[in-house]
Amino acid sequence: MRVEIWSDIACPWCYVGKARFEKALRAFPHRDEVEVVHRSFELDPSRAKGDVEPVLAMLTRKYGMSEAQAQAGEDNLGAQAAAEGLRYRSTGRDHGNTFDLHRLLHLAKERGRQDELIGIFYRANFAEERSVFAEGKERLVELAVEAGLDAEEARGVLADPAAYADAVRADEREAAELGANGVPFFVLDRAYGVSGAQPAEVFTQALTRAWDERSAAKSVESVEPGDADACGPDGCAVS
Amino acid sequence: MRVEIWSDIACPWCYVGKARFEKALRAFPHRDEVEVVHRSFELDPSRAKGDVEPVLAMLTRKYGMSEAQAQAGEDNLGAQAAAEGLRYRSTGRDHGNTFDLHRLLHLAKERGRQDELIGIFYRANFAEERSVFAEGKERLVELAVEAGLDAEEARGVLADPAAYADAVRADEREAAELGANGVPFFVLDRAYGVSGAQPAEVFTQALTRAWDERSAAKSVESVEPGDADACGPDGCAVS
Repeated sequence: MRVEIWSDIACPWCYVGKARFEKALRAFPHRDEVEVVHRSFELDPSRAKGDVEPVLAMLTRKYGMSEAQAQAGEDNLGAQAAAEGLRYRSTGRDHGNTFDLHRLLHLAKERGRQDELIGIFYRANFAEERSVFAEGKERLVELAVEAGLDAEEARGVLADPAAYADAVRADEREAAELGANGVPFFVLDRAYGVSGAQPAEVFTQALTRAWDERSAAKSVESVEPGDADACGPDGCAVS
Repeated sequence: MRVEIWSDIACPWCYVGKARFEKALRAFPHRDEVEVVHRSFELDPSRAKGDVEPVLAMLTRKYGMSEAQAQAGEDNLGAQAAAEGLRYRSTGRDHGNTFDLHRLLHLAKERGRQDELIGIFYRANFAEERSVFAEGKERLVELAVEAGLDAEEARGVLADPAAYADAVRADEREAAELGANGVPFFVLDRAYGVSGAQPAEVFTQALTRAWDERSAAKSVESVEPGDADACGPDGCAVS
């Protein structure tokens, strides 16, 4: 079974939701047959690459919150994160464009390191004092290397704005086609969708339902016209 | 879109079928949005690991063919392979147990090198004089390194019979559940199946049909109970 998770590194509920999903997955009896793929979604795609802003300033400016409201929201997120065992700095974080992070996540997918890298990006953005947005490319290379990627390869992707750009946009187009206008957005076997950082129980229910469905209705429509040139237990067909 | 290909390295029609599928894929307008995953299938799972036998001897012994019949079959396969631009040694090849090769293909999948490794295994088994079965583990390590895998990691998998063994068996169970009793077996988006080394045109038709279907009916059933803690263009929900 395959679970696709659309998310953004700048999305606190994605950070919390991933932990809740993983809690459900760890307890799921068929966890070894579940493959997780992370897909790109930008909450703030129009923000310029160098435009880095403190999170609280962004919240008050962009959504017209008072500073106290913005801080209360961050405190709530911090408490939700703590309940999942996650560190969360509710003051002092930066907000910025995440396109380059998504491009690196696609490189990591190709190299079998995506789950490692997204975990490291979340930790860096939500739990660490150093900004993932304000320190330039070498900070991202450092995190990519920590995930097991090759430094030169990561540098090459960051130096070429076209690298994996189409892959990021294809993910975002798919999210829109699937009706997602917010993240996290979980899709199980392209059959069931879960929106938001739901409690682990909801993910357990979704995993169970998708699994049962899969086992019950395993069939694919055959499209080949006639006899096949194939090999089986009785040898290979001779055409 | 996702295409899963069940195959065995010891299966000549898988070698030919992969080339025909790839011909169709290269010409497919949405090729950049098609992900290919290789899945394990053993044609001869009960063969002991060290039991290596010349292909022609195996064909005459196992299927009761005359030597001329067996050679004619191999010659036909060689001609079909040549028509796809593939080298094929129709005499002198070995047959053996492929479980370890499948285990390495699962390691390669995790490291983003599966397509490279399966291509190298096919070439080694069908086109090269050296046997992939008779030379022991270091021959396989050498091929894994050529695919970009780490030698020590490949050695570690070969030294531990449990490594990726469940992953191989899970693939084989799924093939059985999907009704495949021979390979190659292609499954597009878990919706359409193609059995055998069909002409490229059949793969083109299947790709087109699965793509159109996907675009037409992009919807997933929502399973969450109520309001979601999520982030969207208007900020993050406060629960």
